[in-house]
Amino acid sequence: MKMICTLFLFSLLFSSTYALDFCVGDVKGPESPAGYLCKPSAKVTVDDFVFTGLGIAGNTSNIIKAAVTPAFSAQFPGLNGLGISIGRLDIAVGGVIPFHTHPSASEVLLVLQGKICAGFVSSANTVYLQTLTKGDVMIFPQGLLHFQLNGGGTPAIAYVSFSDPSPGLQILDFALFANDLSSALVEATTFLDDAQVKKLKSVLGGTG
Amino acid sequence: MKMICTLFLFSLLFSSTYALDFCVGDVKGPESPAGYLCKPSAKVTVDDFVFTGLGIAGNTSNIIKAAVTPAFSAQFPGLNGLGISIGRLDIAVGGVIPFHTHPSASEVLLVLQGKICAGFVSSANTVYLQTLTKGDVMIFPQGLLHFQLNGGGTPAIAYVSFSDPSPGLQILDFALFANDLSSALVEATTFLDDAQVKKLKSVLGGTG
Amino acid sequence: MKMICTLFLFSLLFSSTYALDFCVGDVKGPESPAGYLCKPSAKVTVDDFVFTGLGIAGNTSNIIKAAVTPAFSAQFPGLNGLGISIGRLDIAVGGVIPFHTHPSASEVLLVLQGKICAGFVSSANTVYLQTLTKGDVMIFPQGLLHFQLNGGGTPAIAYVSFSDPSPGLQILDFALFANDLSSALVEATTFLDDAQVKKLKSVLGGTG
Amino acid sequence: MKMICTLFLFSLLFSSTYALDFCVGDVKGPESPAGYLCKPSAKVTVDDFVFTGLGIAGNTSNIIKAAVTPAFSAQFPGLNGLGISIGRLDIAVGGVIPFHTHPSASEVLLVLQGKICAGFVSSANTVYLQTLTKGDVMIFPQGLLHFQLNGGGTPAIAYVSFSDPSPGLQILDFALFANDLSSALVEATTFLDDAQVKKLKSVLGGTG
Amino acid sequence: MKMICTLFLFSLLFSSTYALDFCVGDVKGPESPAGYLCKPSAKVTVDDFVFTGLGIAGNTSNIIKAAVTPAFSAQFPGLNGLGISIGRLDIAVGGVIPFHTHPSASEVLLVLQGKICAGFVSSANTVYLQTLTKGDVMIFPQGLLHFQLNGGGTPAIAYVSFSDPSPGLQILDFALFANDLSSALVEATTFLDDAQVKKLKSVLGGTG
Amino acid sequence: MKMICTLFLFSLLFSSTYALDFCVGDVKGPESPAGYLCKPSAKVTVDDFVFTGLGIAGNTSNIIKAAVTPAFSAQFPGLNGLGISIGRLDIAVGGVIPFHTHPSASEVLLVLQGKICAGFVSSANTVYLQTLTKGDVMIFPQGLLHFQLNGGGTPAIAYVSFSDPSPGLQILDFALFANDLSSALVEATTFLDDAQVKKLKSVLGGTG
Repeated sequence: MKMICTLFLFSLLFSSTYALDFCVGDVKGPESPAGYLCKPSAKVTVDDFVFTGLGIAGNTSNIIKAAVTPAFSAQFPGLNGLGISIGRLDIAVGGVIPFHTHPSASEVLLVLQGKICAGFVSSANTVYLQTLTKGDVMIFPQGLLHFQLNGGGTPAIAYVSFSDPSPGLQILDFALFANDLSSALVEATTFLDDAQVKKLKSVLGGTG
Repeated sequence: MKMICTLFLFSLLFSSTYALDFCVGDVKGPESPAGYLCKPSAKVTVDDFVFTGLGIAGNTSNIIKAAVTPAFSAQFPGLNGLGISIGRLDIAVGGVIPFHTHPSASEVLLVLQGKICAGFVSSANTVYLQTLTKGDVMIFPQGLLHFQLNGGGTPAIAYVSFSDPSPGLQILDFALFANDLSSALVEATTFLDDAQVKKLKSVLGGTG
Repeated sequence: MKMICTLFLFSLLFSSTYALDFCVGDVKGPESPAGYLCKPSAKVTVDDFVFTGLGIAGNTSNIIKAAVTPAFSAQFPGLNGLGISIGRLDIAVGGVIPFHTHPSASEVLLVLQGKICAGFVSSANTVYLQTLTKGDVMIFPQGLLHFQLNGGGTPAIAYVSFSDPSPGLQILDFALFANDLSSALVEATTFLDDAQVKKLKSVLGGTG
Repeated sequence: MKMICTLFLFSLLFSSTYALDFCVGDVKGPESPAGYLCKPSAKVTVDDFVFTGLGIAGNTSNIIKAAVTPAFSAQFPGLNGLGISIGRLDIAVGGVIPFHTHPSASEVLLVLQGKICAGFVSSANTVYLQTLTKGDVMIFPQGLLHFQLNGGGTPAIAYVSFSDPSPGLQILDFALFANDLSSALVEATTFLDDAQVKKLKSVLGGTG
Repeated sequence: MKMICTLFLFSLLFSSTYALDFCVGDVKGPESPAGYLCKPSAKVTVDDFVFTGLGIAGNTSNIIKAAVTPAFSAQFPGLNGLGISIGRLDIAVGGVIPFHTHPSASEVLLVLQGKICAGFVSSANTVYLQTLTKGDVMIFPQGLLHFQLNGGGTPAIAYVSFSDPSPGLQILDFALFANDLSSALVEATTFLDDAQVKKLKSVLGGTG
Repeated sequence: MKMICTLFLFSLLFSSTYALDFCVGDVKGPESPAGYLCKPSAKVTVDDFVFTGLGIAGNTSNIIKAAVTPAFSAQFPGLNGLGISIGRLDIAVGGVIPFHTHPSASEVLLVLQGKICAGFVSSANTVYLQTLTKGDVMIFPQGLLHFQLNGGGTPAIAYVSFSDPSPGLQILDFALFANDLSSALVEATTFLDDAQVKKLKSVLGGTG
């Protein structure tokens, strides 16, 4: 009996805050450069480590006929501080995830269904292009421009993992055409024609 | 015309080795603490960034009725240096991925098919346990003991991502019973009974 | 005189908050993924950088006949953010620090007194085992299962340093048997026998 | 005399390779994920730490009327492993450094001469735009699209520093139009018109 | 029209807090080991990323005939979390930036005007010394003692970049002679003579 | 029997190079910015993880009456890549470890025997000073000037741990006086008197 008690105390000893095993994000509070501050351990439950919803298709009834469903630290606070995140891509027939970058993460894409044509461009302007089918995995190194499009006749599904809980997502067209950056500046810094810039600004709701 | 030539030179300029966009591992050569040395850029092709085979079920005709198919940097050298890796789990009915840890990575598991009962234990000895179905995602923080087992009546499939290109995998039973660590030492350091240790050593091929 | 004044002002200039030399943890406040928030510099004194008590033997009157006295950032907030911590091991005759891992740190152990038999197991299931005496140092790489036991006839003392201010400590027996993880799940995920699991759960105060 | 000898030996002792103060890159040899392997210490001289040439204007007689003179680890191997690099921008009247990203580094730009209009776009598509004059400094966070153009009537000069010895440089126009990525793919993934794509491909020497 | 609306919603979707592109420091609030907590994104403007004042000469009417004008994260909160900072050196004729270290950053110095004699000493006690003129760049690896002095007959100006937003600055003379460290301790730990120590303590306002 | 075979194959599977558990340094070969390249796993034995000799007193028959016995990655290659190292200090009566810095590591000192007076100076020139006795631990944050001296009447022993396998060691007196840095430069950059500089150069074997 005494042994059990002693052990129990020993167990209590080691139950104290010796470790920062995880840091579930308190997403309502302030962020640090390393991510959200941690929710108190006592309030953490298994629900903080489980995310549901990536089994459901995203809504592809939009201009790109595609959807990104993120499970990043903002949506899934259990990932905070852990160096990884995940998401789902749905790309309808004729759909595309247009050229974009993730400023702070490399990406690994796994095709679940359908055919996806994917590519990225290196700093040396070399193109790495492949058509992927079910079970294929492709890497998109950190910060490089890349795209995915449906390369077949059926809806495509893929899962994407990132080397950061908050990888960022900068879609080229939105960055150039969906804000108040003036057409003149866009033209001067991209060499695109005025008509082209104004057309896409109009479509994407940009001003200036 | 002159403009094009000038630009072309400009392009050449920027095509040189200004950046280490990626570091495809030379897996035959030596490793550094940060991963394999890089294959020369000139020899890198899109094939270095594409891995096939995760669409195929692993062989679950074994004692655990489960299989892990890794796409870590040793199998998929394009991941070298990029802070991420991926793998596939197949767990037949009654199968289990026994208690294990990944010494250098957090894990994110996504259920593709079937029902998986998964759990991890924190440093405070708290258990985080959940039954997961298709589309559910669960986090296993770095270095903590965790397991996955088939919690349903059909084969289960899951994809796992890791926050390191070489996450490591230490399976508890193999670490304790599948090597030459003497039974006496195992018993002294685990409080398991002699018969229990010898039984599992016998099953798992351990000596001593 | 003017020179002194000028210099004094110069000194004041450089006395302001140009640097984050250290970040003594405010252990009552919230944590970030990188550790506790910092106590204001103005309130930091030398006492924040000094810890006393590692000269005193831990209480080994317990079932493992051993004690761990940690000086991690929770106990010694001056270590917060500095990438290192320390602790003391006392292992009585017949005592043992059972199999355990540190999820976020490598360990260096230095024997001060007595004889310690120590070992760790790699991901490849190789055992690295050694009997250590006074002045010997042994490394336990991050996240790998390891143990230390008294290998002699006198009490043993060692100091352990870790590559993280909060290295974590997951003791195998406590993780498996000292919580509410059901015996059925423990058995399914460890291949241990029912009687063995229930016996250790009983000893360690586990339920289920 | 004996004292000097003793000290001298002491000095020799501490002169050995206790530290990796720096790791001047052996740029002919292989790279690791953390940078080039180190040139042997014995062959390192002060010349490895000094770079000349940033005082000289780059040649702006090209289509963008601008020049980037990098002192990255490939050009300045002393930076290898040190987490920083530098470069010079010359932007003639009417010149522009077109939209680009640095995949692995944040940038700090300091205007030395002239007037520079600079901007970056965040992941939230917000534009951060400013006209800078001599002595102004502007930050461009890692991986985000940004540009600089001469906003005045005289040549502009700026120095740029990066938080990585090899920050990378992906110029949007070159990535899209100066390689063999087919026009069809560019159009599908950027929503640019066919004529626009073909025009820029022609100018920039792209094929497909 | 529907298309635009759809796209607009899409744009809103991607405008949410998916990414931590930057973390402008809230310098009045607490710090974490990784830097200041972040100012809310909604309150961030371009002014947070622009610093003015490095075009103005620092006041060199002091004993060292030199001035350091820092733009570190404490002065320029936009740098918080970004791994880089910048500053300006003015060194009048006969002026010097005395021996000092930056505990957490490597430095890159660029000479803008005049002649600067600069040097650093490695752990192996080797001296790396060079006279620099306009356009020359010199590296000072992290934590090593270094100095800069005006090596010509005209005022010298340089810009310095650091591999950390808060590099720290420990000036040897101030550390030894401008505080309350007793002369006896300074002498015992530097081998300097008592008269020398007291003389410099007097000049620099030190006590004890 | 079949079960055992299957398991054995399974074991072999997991024995392959899935993980980089450790990277014992090949100290004869080249270094990377992250440390030495790794000795092949097959050649690693437990001896690579064990260092003997820290139980033996260093030779304090020298001018500082003190000795540092390092077990850094150059002496103890098993530490390579693991973020930690260790050493022993012996300080005879009247002995001192003079003012020094570790450019790349924080230090934790544990007193084993005797009385040690230790101190460090922050970037703000504040002195943190304490007399330590057996069992006391003191922190010296990365890159800051610090010292230890025997503050009692008996030999003192301490163990020091560092947050880097190769912490570096720059002893102030050696950096200033034990090399070919000219007296004129030392004087100009330290404000020490000519006689003082020449005296110490003479003692320490410096030239110039």
